[in-house]
Amino acid sequence: MDIAVIGSNMVDLISYIDKMPKEGETLEAPDFEIGCGGKGANQAVAAAKMGSKVMLVTKVGDDLFADNTIQNLENHGIDTEFTNKVSGTSSGVAPIFVDQESKNRILIIKGANQHLMPADVERATDKLKTASLIVLQLEIPLPTVYRAIEFGYEHGIPVILNPAPASKELDFDHVCKSDFFIPNESELEILTGMPVASDAQIRQAASVLIKKGVKNVIVTMGSKGVMWVTKEKAQTVESHKVTANDTTGAGDAFIGCFAHFFVKNGDVLHAIKMATAYAALSVTKRGTQSSYPTSEELEEFLNKGV
Amino acid sequence: MDIAVIGSNMVDLISYIDKMPKEGETLEAPDFEIGCGGKGANQAVAAAKMGSKVMLVTKVGDDLFADNTIQNLENHGIDTEFTNKVSGTSSGVAPIFVDQESKNRILIIKGANQHLMPADVERATDKLKTASLIVLQLEIPLPTVYRAIEFGYEHGIPVILNPAPASKELDFDHVCKSDFFIPNESELEILTGMPVASDAQIRQAASVLIKKGVKNVIVTMGSKGVMWVTKEKAQTVESHKVTANDTTGAGDAFIGCFAHFFVKNGDVLHAIKMATAYAALSVTKRGTQSSYPTSEELEEFLNKGV
Repeated sequence: MDIAVIGSNMVDLISYIDKMPKEGETLEAPDFEIGCGGKGANQAVAAAKMGSKVMLVTKVGDDLFADNTIQNLENHGIDTEFTNKVSGTSSGVAPIFVDQESKNRILIIKGANQHLMPADVERATDKLKTASLIVLQLEIPLPTVYRAIEFGYEHGIPVILNPAPASKELDFDHVCKSDFFIPNESELEILTGMPVASDAQIRQAASVLIKKGVKNVIVTMGSKGVMWVTKEKAQTVESHKVTANDTTGAGDAFIGCFAHFFVKNGDVLHAIKMATAYAALSVTKRGTQSSYPTSEELEEFLNKGV
Repeated sequence: MDIAVIGSNMVDLISYIDKMPKEGETLEAPDFEIGCGGKGANQAVAAAKMGSKVMLVTKVGDDLFADNTIQNLENHGIDTEFTNKVSGTSSGVAPIFVDQESKNRILIIKGANQHLMPADVERATDKLKTASLIVLQLEIPLPTVYRAIEFGYEHGIPVILNPAPASKELDFDHVCKSDFFIPNESELEILTGMPVASDAQIRQAASVLIKKGVKNVIVTMGSKGVMWVTKEKAQTVESHKVTANDTTGAGDAFIGCFAHFFVKNGDVLHAIKMATAYAALSVTKRGTQSSYPTSEELEEFLNKGV
């Protein structure tokens, strides 16, 4: 196994609306779409699309979304042995409302994702031990995240923690055992309580986490690129200039592609550069998982010398 | 066939929320439920639960909701020969948001329901001709509603039109050929442009429709009961005193039960009385279709003499 993602899956329920209904109001909206999402599943799919061998430890409900989610993962060649159903619970869903100016409002109902427990990490031990990298986010219970970090630490498997959505309850005594801490700017701001308006401020906030013991902090900054901060240095990788069409899931695209290249040859800077290109290419297309490029598409994009 | 419902089906996507997210905001919500809804399907299910032989002419999408919707109808013994899939289209959905005070906001995305055409009425001719009653609402294209009214008129089959949601474009040259016009107060207000604050005003507004040629106007007034207006007279049937738990779909419960009893013996006043009790009993339970009583439950409720 190249990559073990231990995390969430969600069903995106996207309503394209003219305006939101007020209290007591019923309004017609022009269009609706179902998509497969959730940060864990997105990152697993991005890595799998790049060609990594990926497993996803996650929980689905016992509703009509469950089989569809499992089928989607399997269509991408992802190992779903530990993608298990929870009876009496709905799958995680994200009702999303996109208005005519492409502005979003998002509801998250975690559903079955709240039932992914430390015991589920234990149950997957034999297979997890074969992984070269563990990838985590925060859409599952924190004790499970902590147990997975500990598991990686015990078995000498590097761990990526994408602290999204940002939780102030995140305990850095656990987090500091992860190898790569990859927030975006606003998550960095929430987690450190420090301003992130300039590169210097971002560097300073990241340094606080480094002082807490995190080895690598990689801050994704959208069109401003990526900043990689370690104890020794900070360096910025510039973003590719593209016309953004839909930035949903771009952060997950970055993580999945970074994980793929890091496993491939351990070169962090190269992995950041590839993941930056991958995320840029993904925002040129609409959709989340469906906008993630394959390795061939990434290569073609890079050959164009954009 | 006792009753042919020609109308909509929807998948209710119910988010139980603390508050609505603002523009650009992502908020967690505690709970989510999927339900089978849509005024056409609701009315068909209510009549079927009472024991009528029901068919539903409707369209579903080619998404993961389609088979679930068909299965639900068949579980209620409803004939789905003319419940057809439309490729490349999503099923009708209603994202519903219920806050902590049980107040609702509702989005309606008609999806496949917009593809139910007059030609679909023609296609179902042989089976429709065997029906004793046709039941219609306004969640499908108006030309299809007009064709169905015409079909009933041509073949001597009585037609119920539930003008919901109220559309100002509704053409009374067609509507006047229906036998029962069953709006609630707010629909009556929208359709006539007249005030409906008192019984006298409701009677006056209903009389305008009678003058346009409608034979029976039956106005459902929630806890205030039901007013039945004809050319000759107006009479009110009182509502049952119950503790309302969830009034969603109560109007559809009324229509389905009214249809059942009208087909059974043609006694309009008796059918109104039974349907009033049926709707009252349905609001004591949570949910839409799942809150609809069976004939045994209705009988038990009536025997209690409430």
